[in-house]
Amino acid sequence: MKFSINRAILLEEIYKANKILDLKNPNPTIGGIFLELTMDKLTIISTNTVLSFKSVLTNNNADLDINEPGKILIKGRYVIEMLRRLDDQYVNFTAVENSELRISTTSSEFNINILDAEDYPSLGFREKGTILELDGQEFKRTLAQTLISIDEWSKKLSLSGLNVHVTNESVIFSATDLFRISQKTISLTDKETEEINITIPYKTLLELPKLLENAEKLKIVISEGYVTFVINNVLFQSNLIDGQFPNVSAAFPQEFSAVIFVESKKLLKTLNRADLPNDDGLPQIINLRIEDDSIYVKSTVSEVGNYEEEFKDFKLEGTGNLVISFNSKFLLEALKTFDNEPIKLQFVNPTRPVVISKQRNDKLKQVVLPTYLGN
Amino acid sequence: MKFSINRAILLEEIYKANKILDLKNPNPTIGGIFLELTMDKLTIISTNTVLSFKSVLTNNNADLDINEPGKILIKGRYVIEMLRRLDDQYVNFTAVENSELRISTTSSEFNINILDAEDYPSLGFREKGTILELDGQEFKRTLAQTLISIDEWSKKLSLSGLNVHVTNESVIFSATDLFRISQKTISLTDKETEEINITIPYKTLLELPKLLENAEKLKIVISEGYVTFVINNVLFQSNLIDGQFPNVSAAFPQEFSAVIFVESKKLLKTLNRADLPNDDGLPQIINLRIEDDSIYVKSTVSEVGNYEEEFKDFKLEGTGNLVISFNSKFLLEALKTFDNEPIKLQFVNPTRPVVISKQRNDKLKQVVLPTYLGN
Repeated sequence: MKFSINRAILLEEIYKANKILDLKNPNPTIGGIFLELTMDKLTIISTNTVLSFKSVLTNNNADLDINEPGKILIKGRYVIEMLRRLDDQYVNFTAVENSELRISTTSSEFNINILDAEDYPSLGFREKGTILELDGQEFKRTLAQTLISIDEWSKKLSLSGLNVHVTNESVIFSATDLFRISQKTISLTDKETEEINITIPYKTLLELPKLLENAEKLKIVISEGYVTFVINNVLFQSNLIDGQFPNVSAAFPQEFSAVIFVESKKLLKTLNRADLPNDDGLPQIINLRIEDDSIYVKSTVSEVGNYEEEFKDFKLEGTGNLVISFNSKFLLEALKTFDNEPIKLQFVNPTRPVVISKQRNDKLKQVVLPTYLGN
Repeated sequence: MKFSINRAILLEEIYKANKILDLKNPNPTIGGIFLELTMDKLTIISTNTVLSFKSVLTNNNADLDINEPGKILIKGRYVIEMLRRLDDQYVNFTAVENSELRISTTSSEFNINILDAEDYPSLGFREKGTILELDGQEFKRTLAQTLISIDEWSKKLSLSGLNVHVTNESVIFSATDLFRISQKTISLTDKETEEINITIPYKTLLELPKLLENAEKLKIVISEGYVTFVINNVLFQSNLIDGQFPNVSAAFPQEFSAVIFVESKKLLKTLNRADLPNDDGLPQIINLRIEDDSIYVKSTVSEVGNYEEEFKDFKLEGTGNLVISFNSKFLLEALKTFDNEPIKLQFVNPTRPVVISKQRNDKLKQVVLPTYLGN
């Protein structure tokens, strides 16, 4: 195997491939990155058995200049370190007697031991199935808005991921840890999709934002037991979570006694002050007393002190005189997903969840259960 | 005690006072920050027994508005957290029955428990002694350039700090861990100082850069056993290290067989590539073979691979044909202290130290001993 390639582009792709590796896997082969050079392209593959990564580089997208096809299995870390430290625009990769890789430029030469490529498993990447085409950046925002409510370690396996419900008109992304629900709806332009209901593991979702960094378009391919994300020249494939995701929409209150209209950032700042860190590691409780013209925000940090603030910068519709308490982390994380937008918080009573959405539309809903301590 | 003050300025000073505290000290009083309000100023004091901090705020520098003099002892952490989260320009501090501090603004009120101010020790700050006046930023650079060679845990106590040797004309700052020496000379404008030789503890030096951030002027007051740094409204006082610091200048070679003239950044990049991380935690050795037109830089990472690069971007004076090896960390750290400047590396032979300085002047000298493995 022998080729020359754009250093920065190769570095970027090997870096992505390396990122998903499970370094605790006792099989060193699985910890390697597989490079296969054919007559027209270089394919970079890695896997951690749940997730698999594949990137295809060509002369078009990476100035690839092929000298001699072949395949090698490299340890990513040192190759990444070396590529990062080189200044040259191009680098040469040459396999030396199947046991060494030589990375060279005009003035330098790095010889590094490699693994046995013959041992690498053959991985299947699925590119057929139900296909959703989404805006890459909108999907990235959706991840940030919903991931907060996933409990990766939930005892109920089906809750440990993001539920994707495709209907005739839209995709609904839902996550819940049973204390709160995050739900985002994206309309579909191509309205001939069959109904699908899958749940994607949390670990997979954590890797996606980096891959989506500047991606304009994203193709999601859903097939039996797998989801594959196609982002430019990269395929990113994951197992799915088995089991029925609960119908979280049924948990949303429909009728409200009080609705608060507010700038999310202003309310956030006040709540943030009331959310003082405490040493005992217990969740911090924030108490809201909602009256017609003021919200009194109160909190107590045991053995430290207490905080109270009068918040006036809002509008109320419905009946005031509501006293309700929340786990501050849940409320703050929910508010943060709205950027700096006018939002509404819809309340029923001290025991029923608050539903938070933008004033313009309710494509994003954050539902948070209060902490009800009785009287 | 009752006063109102500029929130951001108070936050900054309490933050600095808090930073030196030793939270492992079993005496909670020593972990507190002492605030003393008199008729014309607020004094903020903290100590960790080796270092002491004092800052004086007035109406002039902090919009201080005094209502009722008094003194309190606060726990810094929560006060800092609260001041940081408030938006208001001014805050009110009120002592409530000697056991609580109330921090309030127009709309908010934070009540926090405090410590007993009567228990706080009386600390003496020395403002008399030999006084050096230095440029704050030049001293900050000097710290960055010399601290690399201090071994905080040196068995020889006198080496665990920065030596300051004041002569009639200049101050010489020296540090050594016995493998390398960093030495910086600053000329004095006021040439009537008596000769002084003191050593400042490493921990003290670590705190100084933050205090010097934007300081134009720095006054160093040296008295028996103590050094006090006066930076604007802040006094920062430290114990000194006992014991004789070695005469490191005597270790500098005076005659050289080969001198290399080079841009520090270019050589750094090459050495950086040869300094690959290794897993076994042993220091990485870089080997240089210096010939008339080329320096061949070589390194080996055991069980990983080896690197070689030909470096040509330099000028040689004297005899080439020198083969010499260094601990890569020592050589890289020394080169990094020169920013992006033309420097010279002066060699004697494979067993004697290299002396590195700027081409323009030798106010900063980095001396690094080679690793001589015999033949």
